[in-house]
Order: sequence, then structure tokens, then C-alpha cells
Amino acid sequence: MAKGYERLNRDLVAKGAIIDYYQDTMQIPNGTTAKWDFIMHKGAAACVAVKKNGNLVMVRQYRNALERETIEIPAGGINPGEDMKTAALRELEEETGYKAGKFEFLLSIRTTVAFCNENIDIYVAKNLKPSKQNLDEDEFINVEAYSVDELCELIYAGKIEDSKTVSAIMSYKNKYCI
Amino acid sequence: MAKGYERLNRDLVAKGAIIDYYQDTMQIPNGTTAKWDFIMHKGAAACVAVKKNGNLVMVRQYRNALERETIEIPAGGINPGEDMKTAALRELEEETGYKAGKFEFLLSIRTTVAFCNENIDIYVAKNLKPSKQNLDEDEFINVEAYSVDELCELIYAGKIEDSKTVSAIMSYKNKYCI
Repeated sequence: MAKGYERLNRDLVAKGAIIDYYQDTMQIPNGTTAKWDFIMHKGAAACVAVKKNGNLVMVRQYRNALERETIEIPAGGINPGEDMKTAALRELEEETGYKAGKFEFLLSIRTTVAFCNENIDIYVAKNLKPSKQNLDEDEFINVEAYSVDELCELIYAGKIEDSKTVSAIMSYKNKYCI
Repeated sequence: MAKGYERLNRDLVAKGAIIDYYQDTMQIPNGTTAKWDFIMHKGAAACVAVKKNGNLVMVRQYRNALERETIEIPAGGINPGEDMKTAALRELEEETGYKAGKFEFLLSIRTTVAFCNENIDIYVAKNLKPSKQNLDEDEFINVEAYSVDELCELIYAGKIEDSKTVSAIMSYKNKYCI
């Protein structure tokens, strides 16, 4: 804990489907206390899936929180006991129907550090081989593919905003395409 | 609403300090219903603040949700009635003590689309002039500066994980530094 900050209490307010909501009582460096929100998330894994022609496999799905469809990299929550790499490979296959022959770590992100511990490890998946899509019962996804330059244009145009997708595409471009 | 999805109900479970937690009852395309989490956030604004030598102004602060310090771009929540650009300029000055003479839009992100509507508009701030830091009472921040290449190294090394910061730095590098 940083000098002057101390968490005096963490109270569970509500258990949700994929997150739990807590209220923290914090002692802060000026000597007073404050109530801060904390959202507990189990973590997730994602991948930049690269086809032979260099295009990336993307998923289009309805997002209730935004009330619209999004274009995102394949991703999903980790299962109990599962490591990040296994989760990323599993989600890639379940969501897109591709298995990856080659797989390497790209970067980790924390989605929203002011109130949530959600972390997402993002991998680069290559040597894709067709397998079988296997969606959760409340998951309905279209699989699409775009060039890296098309995706960057969609990001700067505000058509792709999802932070894991922006972080992944831009970091992939900087590392592999320049 | 996308074909087959319908939100039947949105129940407020708890009002927090910076977020509110709702439980949504969803009708999903296979005909059944599901309970989904929804976190309501008022939105935030951030900026990539560029010094004369090209280095970027960053803020180091303690993040309770991660239980450690982070290095982030200057950012903060919007005030009632405030537009994104005004919020970004205000947060830059409050957190770092710099006013910006030149200011342009870079990109928008949604931090975590599976359960939250938080959006962050990110600007590029240039022609920085020293002003006065003015922190919230529970905010304790150190101001630092790094080159874009140093920041990219910190991201790939896992030392910077915050998604708005990764999205901003990588998008800035791709647009302005290549």
C-alpha cells in the first residue's frame, strides 16, 4: 500500500453474474476517510488472430452495455483454474472456429483502473486452422476479417472503441507492422 | 437493439461513488432470459500531453483497485454539464499543472464493453504552459515525463497496463511518430 493510503474495510454490496461490487472505506494521505467503489472481476484473455494474408479475425456482437454492436478481437473470461493462455486459445476457437498453431504473448491491460481490477492478457495467434465455433448459450457472434490498416482507420473514425481491441490492434501494429 | 435481444428490465442494485450497479434482465436470441451486469459510468476525458522536446507528461498515482501505483496519462471524470474537451483540459491542468495552447481529438475508447458504458475521449495537448496543479482532496499525484519510445517499452514490459494509457500512447505513436 502506498504511503498514507490504507484500506480500512471492503464490504461486499452485491454479487453479479460476471462481477462483484464492493464498497471500500479508505484512509487517504490527508488523514480523512473516503468511500471508493471496487468492482472485482475474474480476469479475461484475448488474442489478435492473424490469417495467412495478414488480415485479423474479428468478432461482431451485440453489447448490452453500449446498446449496439461492436467489432472486437476474440476474448472472454477465464474459467476457474484456467491460465490466461489456455483461456485465450479456448475463446479463439469457441468464438471464431479457429485453432492457432503458433501463439505468443503481446501485452496485458487493466481495463479501468479507477474502480476495477479486470486484467486481460492479449496474445498473437498465427497458423490458424479451421475448427468449430462453440458459443455460450447467450452469445451470438459474427466472424469477420479486416486488414490492420482498415482496423486502424476504424479506430480513428470512432467505429471501434473497445479498449482491449484498440490496445491490441495498435500494439500489434507497432510491434509487427512497422 | 439487435435482432433477438431485448432488455426486459434494468434494476438499480446499488449507487456508488463514481459508478452505479444495475442488474439487467435480457431476452436473448435463443428465446430464454439471462441476468447481465451493467455498470453505469458518467464518462471521462484524458489527454496525451506533449512537451516541447516530444516527451509526454504522465501521472503516477496509487490505485486502490490494483493495490499499487500506476503510470497513466492525465484523465478524470466529466463534471455535470461539462463537455469532453473542457473536462480533458481541466483535468490536465488540475493533475499536472499545465495549460495547453493547442488541443486536438485523438480517439474515443470504451473501457470494458462486457458490462460497463464508460467512455473516455482522448485528446492531444500541445504548447504546454506552466499553470497550477489543483488536486481533488483524495487525489495524490506525481507528475513525470517519458519519451514515446520509453512508454512503448514500459507497455510491452507490463509496467504500464492501464487501457486508456495503452490505447492513447500506441494510437498517438501510430498517428504522429511514424
